[in-house]
Amino acid sequence: MLSPAFLSKLRRLLPAHCVLNEREDLLPFESDGLAVYRNTPDVVALPENEAQVAAILKLCHAEKVAVVARGAGTGLSAGAIPVDGAVLLVLAKLNRIKAIDPLTRTAVIEPGVRNLAISEAVAGHNLYYAPDPSSQIACSIGGNVAENSGGVHCLKYGLTVHNIMKLRAWTIDGQLLEIGNESLDAPGYDLLALLTGSEGMLAVITEVTVKLLPRPERAQVVLAAFDDVAKAGAAVGNIIAAGVIPAGLEMMDRLAIQAAEAFVHAGYPLDCEALLLCEVDGVNEEVSADIYTVRKVLEASGAIEIRTAESEAQRLKFWAGRKAAFPAVGRLAPDYYCMDGTIPRGALPHVLKRISEMSAEYGLAVANVFHAGDGNLHPLILFDANQPGELAKAEAFGGKILELCVEVGGTITGEHGVGLEKINQMCAQFATPELSRFHDVKAAFDPDKLLNPGKAVPELHRCAEWGAMHVHGGQLTHPELPRF
Amino acid sequence: MLSPAFLSKLRRLLPAHCVLNEREDLLPFESDGLAVYRNTPDVVALPENEAQVAAILKLCHAEKVAVVARGAGTGLSAGAIPVDGAVLLVLAKLNRIKAIDPLTRTAVIEPGVRNLAISEAVAGHNLYYAPDPSSQIACSIGGNVAENSGGVHCLKYGLTVHNIMKLRAWTIDGQLLEIGNESLDAPGYDLLALLTGSEGMLAVITEVTVKLLPRPERAQVVLAAFDDVAKAGAAVGNIIAAGVIPAGLEMMDRLAIQAAEAFVHAGYPLDCEALLLCEVDGVNEEVSADIYTVRKVLEASGAIEIRTAESEAQRLKFWAGRKAAFPAVGRLAPDYYCMDGTIPRGALPHVLKRISEMSAEYGLAVANVFHAGDGNLHPLILFDANQPGELAKAEAFGGKILELCVEVGGTITGEHGVGLEKINQMCAQFATPELSRFHDVKAAFDPDKLLNPGKAVPELHRCAEWGAMHVHGGQLTHPELPRF
Repeated sequence: MLSPAFLSKLRRLLPAHCVLNEREDLLPFESDGLAVYRNTPDVVALPENEAQVAAILKLCHAEKVAVVARGAGTGLSAGAIPVDGAVLLVLAKLNRIKAIDPLTRTAVIEPGVRNLAISEAVAGHNLYYAPDPSSQIACSIGGNVAENSGGVHCLKYGLTVHNIMKLRAWTIDGQLLEIGNESLDAPGYDLLALLTGSEGMLAVITEVTVKLLPRPERAQVVLAAFDDVAKAGAAVGNIIAAGVIPAGLEMMDRLAIQAAEAFVHAGYPLDCEALLLCEVDGVNEEVSADIYTVRKVLEASGAIEIRTAESEAQRLKFWAGRKAAFPAVGRLAPDYYCMDGTIPRGALPHVLKRISEMSAEYGLAVANVFHAGDGNLHPLILFDANQPGELAKAEAFGGKILELCVEVGGTITGEHGVGLEKINQMCAQFATPELSRFHDVKAAFDPDKLLNPGKAVPELHRCAEWGAMHVHGGQLTHPELPRF
Repeated sequence: MLSPAFLSKLRRLLPAHCVLNEREDLLPFESDGLAVYRNTPDVVALPENEAQVAAILKLCHAEKVAVVARGAGTGLSAGAIPVDGAVLLVLAKLNRIKAIDPLTRTAVIEPGVRNLAISEAVAGHNLYYAPDPSSQIACSIGGNVAENSGGVHCLKYGLTVHNIMKLRAWTIDGQLLEIGNESLDAPGYDLLALLTGSEGMLAVITEVTVKLLPRPERAQVVLAAFDDVAKAGAAVGNIIAAGVIPAGLEMMDRLAIQAAEAFVHAGYPLDCEALLLCEVDGVNEEVSADIYTVRKVLEASGAIEIRTAESEAQRLKFWAGRKAAFPAVGRLAPDYYCMDGTIPRGALPHVLKRISEMSAEYGLAVANVFHAGDGNLHPLILFDANQPGELAKAEAFGGKILELCVEVGGTITGEHGVGLEKINQMCAQFATPELSRFHDVKAAFDPDKLLNPGKAVPELHRCAEWGAMHVHGGQLTHPELPRF
């Protein structure tokens, strides 16, 4: 609990409506998009400008009070879940688009600006902001930077880190860091990349300069159905090997296809085990050439049905099914748990087979929806939280999937971050030398560990416990937080 | 000086031919490509494998002896220049290509492999490694990672950091860090980006996994002459604004054009103030469409002559002139000093005008050759080191150019790194909060400051001195090292 003395100091820094600590005001901030984990914040601070952010940080630093930064709260790894005795620093009110420059193709924005709002604001210049997480209608750019968010199009256009140029960020002791520039390279260590994806552990961002891209002249999508998941997986590698860099290359398995079709009537073939959606974009002739190549590769890879969208409406319909896949699968069971791991493309067939075997072992159905082109899996584990033990089973199953990803040379997160959810699996991903460097880098920015404590990087003793449990086939439980 | 006791311990770690400390053996290692700075190393260690690298680091750590890692020694910022009392750790013998995988389009290589040798080794798969520094025939991938090297094509294909996936690196105390993976994103702080461009200050790299790209189907180049440097500068921005992402977009001014033409007879028009070379690559139709756009933009931007290469031979000839520009300019004076700074594209006309004014002030001619597309300048200052005071004047002039870059919102290095050369200008680039974070990040890896001491990041007291000198119009001399 925060002391009344601290709270009154905090209130002196902000207008009255910018400090929340009545229970009913705090409830919306209990969890992020991964609602499995919940915790009521002690207090929510909603600064309206950069000076207030700096003042809050200085106060917290002086009083040794922890700070959890939060954007739109759409994260999927409990990265923004409140920590007891901390200030939840919500950056939603910093939501101005400060400048748009069509010549340098950049925009300067505050962290609370929604991802899609950037593209909307620059559409008149025929520009857009490339990274497109599924939550782009709601998620904000500050959170995108904190998580290094990707999206359907990141295979071709890169992650957030590849699409930003500058940051204004504040250290826990209230110093301003001006990071990055408008050049390709910068002297000094790459703090821009270091802060991007650092999950609020190193600094608090108050301004982002993003790159804008010209809208592609044309986009076209090919849909292909397969009678075998492994064949679809192999086709993914074949498309890339043929020299095409698709703007998006997505895969769904039978359960996901059925659910999506029932939900939005995308026109998907139903009698198949896997579906690929491959989009290419660019100038007209390039798109035609790529579509020709993609169709040839899909045929040679054994697709049982191949369709190119016949109209822009059909193209959008094909995507509507994919984009609605999560809520569609959500209709199949009371609850689902969305995992996020990556694997080398070549390991797709093996991993899908193992997931299906584990599904039988745990007695929980799984739908697979993923960014196949970059090997980013999103297995959706179906369960019923009202059945005693099912949540724990789903968590254990999810953990095993992530460890499988590491086993085949992949990672425990593709785009959702580590947060609280995957803190144990970090022990599978990294050895002591890397984890030690993470802790030392953290200390370089925040020696008192006040920024988002307990997230993203496990303490070494936790990994030692994890290692011991793991050897004996046990499961390390998550940090102590109320659930549901 | 290193003690005989230390040297005999070092000798026990390596075969006899792998430790050099006879004066005639040491001379080739006195400087890197920036021969203005020279220092004879105390000892050169040439390990033949990773285990030897780790053993050398452990010994140096135990004995608190500094280590300067060196690749092919082609660097242009004195980053690999020996430091007194240090081991010069030359990684040239780690030069195996360990694996090539055409399916995942990756190669696993040791740091001593030459940049161009990668592309040669994978040419049979119709693949290549994209970053192409001018020194690519000689420079090695380890140095490329240490400097985050770019090249003519990095506007479209990115810097080294965008073209590598994994590193094996050793900390000064001999711990192995396995960094990165084959996915787009990775959990934890982005140590891959942090080590890339860290100039040997954080760890020593012994293995790099690089991305390979399919060779573009076609490349074509347009040459345009202008009667006004500012118009050429504006044309650069106009091409990018038209939505074309050139594979290369290079600019030369009158002096550089004349020198290059006299040297390699590239067929350049001579009666002009500036020349642009704009290359596009991709599938055939895309290249045609882009060339059409580029020509239209160049016309509208006031080019007085526009030529598209009529054959592959002519295309290569056009590039031969640009690639030979440095040695060509080198024929105009006994010495030249190649600067490397970046500026926002929009500032090109202003900066070129200021450089020309400063050229008159300092009484030293300048030829400008640069990667115009990404605003990376390479002014070549002509001087005669045998004339007393000319080197100091050239250095002072160069420093002023870099400070001008910072003034207009650019940086003091585009691709050559900071090394020893630009250590003072780092004080112009960064304020105390950023410099402090750099030092703290350094401490996270190398608390005893044994790796490449005195390079890349200035001590805060140096910047304080620099600030005081600067106010009074003085010049801070470079660190104390013999020259010439």
